[in-house]
Amino acid sequence: MNEKIEVYLASNRDTHLSQLKDFLAIPSISTQTEHKGDMEKAAEWTAESLRQLGMDNVKVYETKGHPVVYGEWLKAEGKPTALIYGHYDVQPVDPVELWNSPPFSAEIREEKLYARGASDDKGQTFMHLKALEAFLETTGTLPLNFKFCIEGEEEMGSPNLPAFAEEHKELFAADLIVVSDTGMIEKGKPAITYGLRGLCGLQIDLKGPSGDVHSGLYGGAIQNPIHALVKIVDSFHSKDGHILVDGFYDDVLTVTQQEKEEFASLQFNEEEVKKELGVNELYGEEGYSYLERTWTRPTLEVNGIYGGYQGGGLKTVLPSEAHAKISCRLVPNQDPDKIVEQLKQHITKHLPAGVEVEMSRFDQGHPYLTPIDHPYVQAAGEAYEKVYDVKTSYIRSGGSIPIIATFKQLFNLPIVLMGFGLPNENFHAPNEHFHLENFDKGMRVLCHYWEDVAKIEL
Amino acid sequence: MNEKIEVYLASNRDTHLSQLKDFLAIPSISTQTEHKGDMEKAAEWTAESLRQLGMDNVKVYETKGHPVVYGEWLKAEGKPTALIYGHYDVQPVDPVELWNSPPFSAEIREEKLYARGASDDKGQTFMHLKALEAFLETTGTLPLNFKFCIEGEEEMGSPNLPAFAEEHKELFAADLIVVSDTGMIEKGKPAITYGLRGLCGLQIDLKGPSGDVHSGLYGGAIQNPIHALVKIVDSFHSKDGHILVDGFYDDVLTVTQQEKEEFASLQFNEEEVKKELGVNELYGEEGYSYLERTWTRPTLEVNGIYGGYQGGGLKTVLPSEAHAKISCRLVPNQDPDKIVEQLKQHITKHLPAGVEVEMSRFDQGHPYLTPIDHPYVQAAGEAYEKVYDVKTSYIRSGGSIPIIATFKQLFNLPIVLMGFGLPNENFHAPNEHFHLENFDKGMRVLCHYWEDVAKIEL
Repeated sequence: MNEKIEVYLASNRDTHLSQLKDFLAIPSISTQTEHKGDMEKAAEWTAESLRQLGMDNVKVYETKGHPVVYGEWLKAEGKPTALIYGHYDVQPVDPVELWNSPPFSAEIREEKLYARGASDDKGQTFMHLKALEAFLETTGTLPLNFKFCIEGEEEMGSPNLPAFAEEHKELFAADLIVVSDTGMIEKGKPAITYGLRGLCGLQIDLKGPSGDVHSGLYGGAIQNPIHALVKIVDSFHSKDGHILVDGFYDDVLTVTQQEKEEFASLQFNEEEVKKELGVNELYGEEGYSYLERTWTRPTLEVNGIYGGYQGGGLKTVLPSEAHAKISCRLVPNQDPDKIVEQLKQHITKHLPAGVEVEMSRFDQGHPYLTPIDHPYVQAAGEAYEKVYDVKTSYIRSGGSIPIIATFKQLFNLPIVLMGFGLPNENFHAPNEHFHLENFDKGMRVLCHYWEDVAKIEL
Repeated sequence: MNEKIEVYLASNRDTHLSQLKDFLAIPSISTQTEHKGDMEKAAEWTAESLRQLGMDNVKVYETKGHPVVYGEWLKAEGKPTALIYGHYDVQPVDPVELWNSPPFSAEIREEKLYARGASDDKGQTFMHLKALEAFLETTGTLPLNFKFCIEGEEEMGSPNLPAFAEEHKELFAADLIVVSDTGMIEKGKPAITYGLRGLCGLQIDLKGPSGDVHSGLYGGAIQNPIHALVKIVDSFHSKDGHILVDGFYDDVLTVTQQEKEEFASLQFNEEEVKKELGVNELYGEEGYSYLERTWTRPTLEVNGIYGGYQGGGLKTVLPSEAHAKISCRLVPNQDPDKIVEQLKQHITKHLPAGVEVEMSRFDQGHPYLTPIDHPYVQAAGEAYEKVYDVKTSYIRSGGSIPIIATFKQLFNLPIVLMGFGLPNENFHAPNEHFHLENFDKGMRVLCHYWEDVAKIEL
């Protein structure tokens, strides 16, 4: 890599961190309507940064929700075009009293930057801007063409971006998509995430008597909607953690031997997880390792259950209603629509006597898997290796980034997930932070990567 | 019955109803601390009424909670003493917007008195005072000795009365206890309630990871406390509604053939219940009729369940905790302590891997059964028959009045439950009311009863 780039990044570090702190100071919480003004401010901040960077056609596009920020640089004739996706919105900060420093007043402690969005995803998005700045300021040009798509609704599940992207298909036309919104395995261990789970979900609403009734007068003679709900939920899993919904596993891709070996080489430490989560024992589907369970196997989880009395003491009611929110993490090649139908059929089949059911589906996303052996993916792995000086791992994540799968379906491009977060950086929780080691190294990885991608002939 | 008593009750009806309206105007909601002053006011109103009636040693006894009102008349030498139990506290009135007239401004519509407490239990307690007044005003004396114990915490489960009664055992010494806080079968069909179910309960708190975690990152690899709770709850019942807790039915008294015939003679209308509750189907333990299920069989019901996310949409968390409130209605001769132990053992035995459990018990009460053939009970049935001119039924109730069982254990006296409410009078609900037909006839029943009890030689 060009020596000047190294020097530029090092000597401008303070300026960059100070700029990032400004970005982090905007409380752009997409799910809270009182922050609507902040969302516009964050979009405008992003657009202005793209303009100062030298991007062309920078525009804040209105959507039905929060705006999408676009910018492009298309002067590398004959070279491929990379679409960089990121998001300027952040998670809520509750419970705010658990933060050791204010969530929107970034603070560096022990070489970690503490703020909401430091890692997810303002920090990582910002790194892309500064990597390109390093090229432009030192060489006056960029090794390939770039487009930016920085949205403001990722933490809401990107409800408006798919329609927007479909409408602006030409605007987003590219040769590859790069996203930095995932993580490394642990400190010093970089990783390319090549697979994500998908998501689908259902709300189950059971209705018994028209109002809560006295458990003494009627108890024993009518169906208790909580009991009925429990019967349904308990019918989802076998004792060994297998999901018993008919057809659920039909489309699940078998993990390859190469993947199994790759996973095994990670020497995943289950004891660490137990300690981190404060549980005495792990539990999951029999016959699979921890990584296989979270990365390659689908789940069916109850995310919330409620019915009857929840206050202090006892209230001897038979409740009128009982509710559960369930969601499935899906793996390739499961289809969310098909799974939701299977769930509905299962629930209908297992519905106990004496209650009525209503089911409503939640937003969903497809699972995602990109070929590890694609040159753009391999180049990413090599770029990490040049900076971190260790082998890059190819991993999956148990989480879902629905927009990734949507991009895959819309554009059918290689998507490279180059994440710089660490698992314990508390994204979505109090005291979110970002290790500055990965901020510094990450920008160098990106610079290597763009240089290398420019040389690849497909 | 003395003709003068009939005339007295008829000619003083307006005065009595006006006095009862004053009593009903006091919002003596025992469970709401803002009504503490009203509780004292209602206790004082009761005491003053006893004084005006001519009771001696009338006193408002302080307890750890709301006061107990006592009064006595012991001038019938050689005659038995009846202890009349009632309560001056009432249920909350929420949702108040569903009331057609203000809950504490009693109103008569179509010969029904609408107000909170009209039936449960101010109205029925007041009837006892006026029945004795009719004797005293027309004959100058009473046919036997009387003691009153009117408490203010029945709707809270009488937390302080047992200790108070034990402490004042001599004060409450009597030959029988009469309580009017139950109901008739339906309009025109009087009943003596000779059995009540008992109650015990447990809070189950399950704890998994130390905080809510991401269902994508960890889903499939740790125990979901909701799933674990559902497994436990589902293990309580068989498919045919039988309770599967070891030893649960050991002490359950078999219903006698005489009782079965008595129940059958009631020609209970299941269709009515379905209509009333708005359910398409009844559901209960196989092999038992509706009345057997609610009166003679124990239950295990979940009164509340909660864990994870309950807001709008979906939040893909694996919750840290899950909770259930369970209670059992018990039948003779089940012992609440023993049942709670059995429940705890069952839960411990069925506890899934990966969660920890805490269990805490709720207040409880013994089931109650009094011999139908006791002369004081038979006399009560005959007193109804003299006024209503139909056969009195001997019924049980699925509900619990823990203080009744406590009295039974403390004093081992015959307890006669002479109720005048009707099942659809909305006690504990908006638009509570009391049919004035039963107000009028009920006082006559009581007068007959006291005359007859005075003649019984045991």
